[in-house]
Amino acid sequence: MANNIVPLNELISQFEKLPGIGVKTAQRLAYSILEQPPERAEKFAEALVNARRKIHFCKVCQALTDLEVCAICDDAARDKSVICVVAEPKDVMAFERTREYNGVYHVLHGVISPLDGIGPDKLRIKEPMARLGSGEVKELIMATNPTVEGEATASYISRLVKPMGIKVTRLAYGIPVGGDLEYADKFTLARALEGRNEI
Amino acid sequence: MANNIVPLNELISQFEKLPGIGVKTAQRLAYSILEQPPERAEKFAEALVNARRKIHFCKVCQALTDLEVCAICDDAARDKSVICVVAEPKDVMAFERTREYNGVYHVLHGVISPLDGIGPDKLRIKEPMARLGSGEVKELIMATNPTVEGEATASYISRLVKPMGIKVTRLAYGIPVGGDLEYADKFTLARALEGRNEI
Repeated sequence: MANNIVPLNELISQFEKLPGIGVKTAQRLAYSILEQPPERAEKFAEALVNARRKIHFCKVCQALTDLEVCAICDDAARDKSVICVVAEPKDVMAFERTREYNGVYHVLHGVISPLDGIGPDKLRIKEPMARLGSGEVKELIMATNPTVEGEATASYISRLVKPMGIKVTRLAYGIPVGGDLEYADKFTLARALEGRNEI
Repeated sequence: MANNIVPLNELISQFEKLPGIGVKTAQRLAYSILEQPPERAEKFAEALVNARRKIHFCKVCQALTDLEVCAICDDAARDKSVICVVAEPKDVMAFERTREYNGVYHVLHGVISPLDGIGPDKLRIKEPMARLGSGEVKELIMATNPTVEGEATASYISRLVKPMGIKVTRLAYGIPVGGDLEYADKFTLARALEGRNEI
């Protein structure tokens, strides 16, 4: 690393372990910490440890929370009869940003991917099944990514759930809002055509 | 931020304060911390605090070090009669990577920039002047960036030093190794022509 300052190299290598951060960026970030007042580094350190210690999975929906039951599951105004099933905690935030969804969530923490050795047993599938038993749930929206693994996961869960008489839906495929037809791939365009609506 | 998990938001905002890290990247980095074992976050936190606490400026050359005098100034094999004057601590690492330089350094911690209110008094210029008094130093290599501010700083220092009978040199301007003439700007090309050498 062309320097022999041990604490600096340690900090650079910690930054380098972050996803998408290469050695040059890691160096830049480490130097930026040294240029700031010590309180800044201490606050950052505190935020890191705090976030990792206090945040865990909601015992109902498995989303991230610092409470026992997350704010969404705990909100009496949310419609508990609709569950949106997503792969990752950050997908919950994506839906929340739309401000259009008033149901609750379930986070699978992954998708079925036989090539990576991830079978249904590695995902949190038991937990939503338990929630379905109460009879309160009317609809399950499968909102995994539109990839092979996401599709496989969605159809696996839908096969489990359908016999229970619960409606299972899938997000609509189509052209993205503000997108350009010219750049839409043929599969997306074919699905958009297939799913056309009367106006 | 479409979530109300306080420790998560705090971590995201800490990442966002880093240079060149936007809100999307900050979110991605924060989530990556939550996906790792808690020891990872603790090690990162420790590295942050340690680096900031232990690293300070070498009392001789003002470069970064965790010792009183940095390893370069303390190395008896380095030629103390040549001082390479750079603007930032990371410039020292850049020269060290070349493995071609055997002198010592002086870090100014900035360049003269009247527009930003940075005059010579804001830089560490007194310190190298003190080192020059001993008569040991024969040459000062001005290695500030080839920008207007870098040039101004180099010529300011050279005017101070020349009356002391010390040789002041400047890094060579020219086309970068592996560069393409077609893409070299006209100023660089003119300087490369001006500084041509017999082969």
